[in-house]
Amino acid sequence: MADQYAQTREDNRLAGTPVIRWEEPPEGPVVILLDQTRLPAEEIERVCTDAPALVDAIRSLAVRGAPLLGIAGAYGVALAAARGFDVDEAAAALTAARPTAVNLAVGVRRAQSAHRAALAETGDTGRAASAALAAARGLHEEDAAASARMAGHGLALLDELLPGGGHRVLTHCNSGSLVSGGEGTAFAVALAAHRAGRLRRLWVDETRPLLQGARLTAYEAARNDMAYTLLTDNAAGSLFAAGEVDAVLVGADRIAADGSVANKVGSYPLAVLARYHHVPFVVVAPVTTIDPDTPDGASIEVEQRPGYEVTEFVAPQVPVAGAGGGVPVAPLGTQAYNPAFDITPPELVTAIVTEEGAVSPVTAKALADLCAKPRRAPVG
Amino acid sequence: MADQYAQTREDNRLAGTPVIRWEEPPEGPVVILLDQTRLPAEEIERVCTDAPALVDAIRSLAVRGAPLLGIAGAYGVALAAARGFDVDEAAAALTAARPTAVNLAVGVRRAQSAHRAALAETGDTGRAASAALAAARGLHEEDAAASARMAGHGLALLDELLPGGGHRVLTHCNSGSLVSGGEGTAFAVALAAHRAGRLRRLWVDETRPLLQGARLTAYEAARNDMAYTLLTDNAAGSLFAAGEVDAVLVGADRIAADGSVANKVGSYPLAVLARYHHVPFVVVAPVTTIDPDTPDGASIEVEQRPGYEVTEFVAPQVPVAGAGGGVPVAPLGTQAYNPAFDITPPELVTAIVTEEGAVSPVTAKALADLCAKPRRAPVG
Repeated sequence: MADQYAQTREDNRLAGTPVIRWEEPPEGPVVILLDQTRLPAEEIERVCTDAPALVDAIRSLAVRGAPLLGIAGAYGVALAAARGFDVDEAAAALTAARPTAVNLAVGVRRAQSAHRAALAETGDTGRAASAALAAARGLHEEDAAASARMAGHGLALLDELLPGGGHRVLTHCNSGSLVSGGEGTAFAVALAAHRAGRLRRLWVDETRPLLQGARLTAYEAARNDMAYTLLTDNAAGSLFAAGEVDAVLVGADRIAADGSVANKVGSYPLAVLARYHHVPFVVVAPVTTIDPDTPDGASIEVEQRPGYEVTEFVAPQVPVAGAGGGVPVAPLGTQAYNPAFDITPPELVTAIVTEEGAVSPVTAKALADLCAKPRRAPVG
Repeated sequence: MADQYAQTREDNRLAGTPVIRWEEPPEGPVVILLDQTRLPAEEIERVCTDAPALVDAIRSLAVRGAPLLGIAGAYGVALAAARGFDVDEAAAALTAARPTAVNLAVGVRRAQSAHRAALAETGDTGRAASAALAAARGLHEEDAAASARMAGHGLALLDELLPGGGHRVLTHCNSGSLVSGGEGTAFAVALAAHRAGRLRRLWVDETRPLLQGARLTAYEAARNDMAYTLLTDNAAGSLFAAGEVDAVLVGADRIAADGSVANKVGSYPLAVLARYHHVPFVVVAPVTTIDPDTPDGASIEVEQRPGYEVTEFVAPQVPVAGAGGGVPVAPLGTQAYNPAFDITPPELVTAIVTEEGAVSPVTAKALADLCAKPRRAPVG
């Protein structure tokens, strides 16, 4: 049975709330999540005392974002082990919570394997639980370290592309600490520029239909005291025309072997605008995002999402009216075209920045070489 | 004192409600407006029995759109005259209802001048009232006739540009009968293609932040049984990439002498996407939209609108929460960049279609020649 409770931050410090953490109060270990469904209106944490509570948080999108889901899954296994529940049952339930989220399954498996190996070796459930927790913490730290390395490589690239400094960066969707164990991907680069005193402005696309830019990236920018401005996705054109954008930074959901980038819908039009205005378009993503088994952009299947995300407006505070649980903003029966992602071909991508370095120009060979590089040893 | 009442259509026919009309029931003449603030949820008419009621309708955006405001203003003067009110006082109040709407002032002046001239000539207030009404009706019919001619010229151009037929047209914002005494500008061309059996699909950009595409264009497309699909503005890129857009049709708020087009924000990115994908980008607007006193795009002042249009969601059904009267979707204090329009330079415009014919390629000389053409005599 799901066991969880909400805790509101009393001091209301914006910069202080971690997205996910493990704590061990006297009542027993817990996983604490920042509830992303309540952002930006409320900064509320969900305290999960068992795996089903975590399953519920994953299903309801309280925790989301591919790398972060992997970390959450691993902590879920560790929690089941530490609380004495059936670890394999917990692992199966966690994996099934978002069946298409590959990172979730990978994270769960990593903690589960560590648990199983330690149990086989020592026969001690306490040591096995510690091994599962160590695996979850290792994944968490690796992801944070990868973020930091991407940020470093990305900032170096920005400085090289824009020697004048005072970067004005446009970003789309959410690619910060809310999707990662660390500070994220594209957002982490902007944040590094901010900390180095070289970010003049972060332009934040609102990112329709689900408004991840308005709700989450603006929230992260505010948390970090960055100079940011929100805009509707279609107002980016005016900014480019006015010469107000020095670089575009986006994340990626999948990168094909030829360098085609699948990312949140709206990324491709930005790549075309960037090309037309001679502005660099930079993709920031961990090496694991590069999928050698996907030869090109045409091979990437783009998820089509429900039309009601476009035809209705949904917010926790708004009374339910339409089929999607929101207020209709289009005539009833309106058909909507609502792809989750779009594909940017490699010729429009100035560079792909990973934790192992940047690739520019983006070619199949350069990406294959990057993937073949020996990796750094996992941290922790 | 404003005197008005709402009337709901009992038969709920979508195709039957005129946007504005003059009626003379036994109780006295009235101007009846389709209340655009209630669309698409409800098709409710506002019956205005005097000029202040019309002023109220204009202020609250129940009636909107440049050409339509001119017609509403002229009918308002006619209504004051027919009901025996002070015509000059009504004219002043109507003009002040939206001070920046040039067409409103022009429409009011036209009916007022006709009234004044007839009164001076005949000394008969009844005849003067008839003259004001005739002027309003004349403006209404001229605008409808201009729409019809734009639709004809626009369809001929589409057929010429796309000889294969089966046009898939993308449009932005609202440019149909809700902004015009007739069937509008860009939308009227799509409608003509639909009636000729040559519209395969109307792609409707939702048009953030005020969603005129989702709320109004989708409504007009549904009224007319057109095959249409709604999309977020940033999903247009995927459609272009997939080869699903044959032409872009948009209206215009102002066209500079050099052919630069100011239109709803989001038009310019479409023009860049269209160019990148070798798709025609066509602007449809009456000749009066061309402003010879504005030399170029840089001379067009772009209205910056309140940030809360972006940071909050507003709908009649939604409880008030934020400063803009809506539900916040971004952190409190978020600064927004919210230009109402953007500027598309003439080199990205394939053609400008007016009631006097199409100009292509778009050059200052071609536009000047078009404006110098003798106009057709006003109708009615």
